[in-house]
Amino acid sequence: MEYAVLIILLALAQFTWFTARVGVARSRYKVDAPKTTGNDTWERLFRVQQNTMEQLVVFIPAMLAFSFYLSARWALLPGIVFLAGRQLYSWEYISKPSSRTPGMALTLLANAVLLVGALAGILMKVF
Amino acid sequence: MEYAVLIILLALAQFTWFTARVGVARSRYKVDAPKTTGNDTWERLFRVQQNTMEQLVVFIPAMLAFSFYLSARWALLPGIVFLAGRQLYSWEYISKPSSRTPGMALTLLANAVLLVGALAGILMKVF
Amino acid sequence: MEYAVLIILLALAQFTWFTARVGVARSRYKVDAPKTTGNDTWERLFRVQQNTMEQLVVFIPAMLAFSFYLSARWALLPGIVFLAGRQLYSWEYISKPSSRTPGMALTLLANAVLLVGALAGILMKVF
Repeated sequence: MEYAVLIILLALAQFTWFTARVGVARSRYKVDAPKTTGNDTWERLFRVQQNTMEQLVVFIPAMLAFSFYLSARWALLPGIVFLAGRQLYSWEYISKPSSRTPGMALTLLANAVLLVGALAGILMKVF
Repeated sequence: MEYAVLIILLALAQFTWFTARVGVARSRYKVDAPKTTGNDTWERLFRVQQNTMEQLVVFIPAMLAFSFYLSARWALLPGIVFLAGRQLYSWEYISKPSSRTPGMALTLLANAVLLVGALAGILMKVF
Repeated sequence: MEYAVLIILLALAQFTWFTARVGVARSRYKVDAPKTTGNDTWERLFRVQQNTMEQLVVFIPAMLAFSFYLSARWALLPGIVFLAGRQLYSWEYISKPSSRTPGMALTLLANAVLLVGALAGILMKVF
């Protein structure tokens, strides 16, 4: 399980970076709290963070369940794809939102593999 | 713990469906990233996903803690109520947002039972 | 691990309170679903909840990993700082959004300590 937890902690460090960037950019782009709209560049940073949170809510439990019930070694592959996919997604979204498909696809693929693999592993255990 | 993890994975599959629907509907309803407003139907799909994420952040740890510290068998009941409540919430919200109270109430009830049960279980263990 | 889980459950109870408040305030401030804008006071309540969710996604796994791989006793300190920081953040944000820095700083500090500590603990275990 150590490698799964390590990958999760790295994904949380990446998310913390995306989050810190949103907070710092509020003053630069003059988006005063509680507003979350008004500047397109800031909204891109905000959406990268928000979308990453949505993906982490699936990634973290699915990563742990896949590692525990199917294979701790094979979990590394979708884990690394997730991290790389999120970084790519961030670069793409900031430069041009409509170009974000490859980064998004890698994340969805990683999460789908983890979710289906974890379900398969637990169903084999239970039945 | 297997049944708790199984229910959590099913809830994540349901959430993945809500999430995919939001992404696909962006082009149909012409809500270009990074915007999250502009079309009422799309905003309903988006709010179903966002609200489900808010509930999952409570559901996942509370489900695991309830199963581990109180009862793995009784956790199934609020678990199934959560899944059904979210599906009902999605149907209600999409057809008419003001009709979403029953689905929301089922989710909140499931989460409240899991949270209070988990707290009771852990306090009995600690003291 | 019991104390880490207890702190997490308390943080989830606090988040449930922030969430319930947002739902109830929709009718008072006339922000009809699916809208999430239109009244500044409601938007403050909403942002407190949303920001707390963002922080919980880091806090919960980092708290568990810190407790498991580094120290279950020392995890209590950032855990209590997190809870207090979120309460302070809520009070500050509601009274005046621009005054929210101290509450935010306490939360970020707690999460940074948990994340770095968990990473250190797991790297010592793995290598």
